[in-house]
Amino acid sequence: MNANATMQIVRSVAELQNILNPRQREGRTVGFVPTMGFLHEGHLALAGQARREHDVVVMSIFVNPAQFGPGEDYEAYPRDEQRDAELAAAAGVDYLFIPSVEEMYPHDSSIRILPGTQAEQLCGASRPGHFDGVLKVLLKLFNIVDPDESYFGMKDAQQLAIIETFVRDFNLRTAINRVETVREEDGMAKSSRNVRLTEQERKEASAINRALASGKKSYYEGVPLSEIEKIVSSAIENHTSGTIDYVKALAYPSLDEDFSDADEVIIAAAVKFSSTRLIDNIIMSTIKDERK
Amino acid sequence: MNANATMQIVRSVAELQNILNPRQREGRTVGFVPTMGFLHEGHLALAGQARREHDVVVMSIFVNPAQFGPGEDYEAYPRDEQRDAELAAAAGVDYLFIPSVEEMYPHDSSIRILPGTQAEQLCGASRPGHFDGVLKVLLKLFNIVDPDESYFGMKDAQQLAIIETFVRDFNLRTAINRVETVREEDGMAKSSRNVRLTEQERKEASAINRALASGKKSYYEGVPLSEIEKIVSSAIENHTSGTIDYVKALAYPSLDEDFSDADEVIIAAAVKFSSTRLIDNIIMSTIKDERK
Repeated sequence: MNANATMQIVRSVAELQNILNPRQREGRTVGFVPTMGFLHEGHLALAGQARREHDVVVMSIFVNPAQFGPGEDYEAYPRDEQRDAELAAAAGVDYLFIPSVEEMYPHDSSIRILPGTQAEQLCGASRPGHFDGVLKVLLKLFNIVDPDESYFGMKDAQQLAIIETFVRDFNLRTAINRVETVREEDGMAKSSRNVRLTEQERKEASAINRALASGKKSYYEGVPLSEIEKIVSSAIENHTSGTIDYVKALAYPSLDEDFSDADEVIIAAAVKFSSTRLIDNIIMSTIKDERK
Repeated sequence: MNANATMQIVRSVAELQNILNPRQREGRTVGFVPTMGFLHEGHLALAGQARREHDVVVMSIFVNPAQFGPGEDYEAYPRDEQRDAELAAAAGVDYLFIPSVEEMYPHDSSIRILPGTQAEQLCGASRPGHFDGVLKVLLKLFNIVDPDESYFGMKDAQQLAIIETFVRDFNLRTAINRVETVREEDGMAKSSRNVRLTEQERKEASAINRALASGKKSYYEGVPLSEIEKIVSSAIENHTSGTIDYVKALAYPSLDEDFSDADEVIIAAAVKFSSTRLIDNIIMSTIKDERK
């Protein structure tokens, strides 16, 4: 185990910078795992990889109000700081940054970052302003921590694509590490929101991953992507009580509807259950010359 | 003199970062002077101060297309790289960063930074999108250079106010240093655009600064700010052939129209001449208790 008995919880921006800056000046590298807490094995996989790859591991826990819309689950988002701290320490985190909303947003700022065309699809279409809030908090966190590398899970594939573009287009100083989605035994993607499913919904929800996997199989069997959206949607509708928010195939990471030039394609799904909304996706290499 | 015989011109982002990163790891501080070139004594004052205050001085020269609107003077903006290099070296610059447009914007990015309420007044109202472009290029430059301190002139007071807010609200890692406007003997603010005035306009243009100074004098004599806008406007109209774009008194740096709580007030003016548009301003402490 990498358990870190001396993990330090830090709540102020200034204190975290005072701790990290001298270490960075000594040439020690920093791996960073931004989270909204209520940690599960997906987060711990990010922390574990950061631990193996860097001298210093920083994890943040901040349920960011800026990325929740009106009527979304900001208040209901699950929180358990003590359990999170134990899990983070066990995963080898050195500094667990848990700022208050006032610490992160002391001013009523009117400056906004608009994420552009990649945010027009999928969750960006269903959750207007969501990715504005994601980029706002990440630019702040990246500036506060100044990590060499930041770790993100592929479950939030659209978020990852937008972050990669933001880093590229604005020369942000962190590298971005894409980490595979961690799944339950039945294939369901780990998510902090899974605890908000009923027992029945929890059983049904594994159908989302199976539907995406069958979509991928059909694609390699030669079924066109437009058909595959329907196949995946039907499979989810037939095996869950949830309501489909979207099932969509797009070029990845551009999220263009035109995938004629893309190397990779994502099939992404969002499904609403009684008191939470789940997302999952599968990414696959495009079939090109073989089909000509 | 601080003349730097070994000043190095750098045109690529990667090369500049390769040069600066090891120096920064050694704990040497970096002062940064972002410019659009065609250097005058205003820029050189910024560089001179950076030279006195930091181990390494970086100046950038980049006429940023993103901050010019359609029909503005992007093409006509004056450029003279060789002269700029001589002046920068004489001012003690270590690294003169002159990227091409392709180097700065290799991708057609759709991510935007919207500067908020401070950009709704003054030049932001006259030049829609201007400050989006300013924040875009500055976020890139700050990430590329990672300066300890960046130097900006007070002539562009609205730009400075917006940058200070951006730095504060997004935890940018650079400090911002406000440097006094450098003026010609007749009081006219130094500007790269001054060369585009006719000889007659150049003589008239000193009236802008005189009008602002008389506005300040009237304010301290007890004239209300609403009246002062008129006094300054009339003085400019009576003594120049230019057309007033705006003359406006606002709280500084909030740029609020309500200055009841402000410690400082700006009177800012923009005047259009035959082939260029000039800006200038004066900032003064508000009169408070004395008048109660």
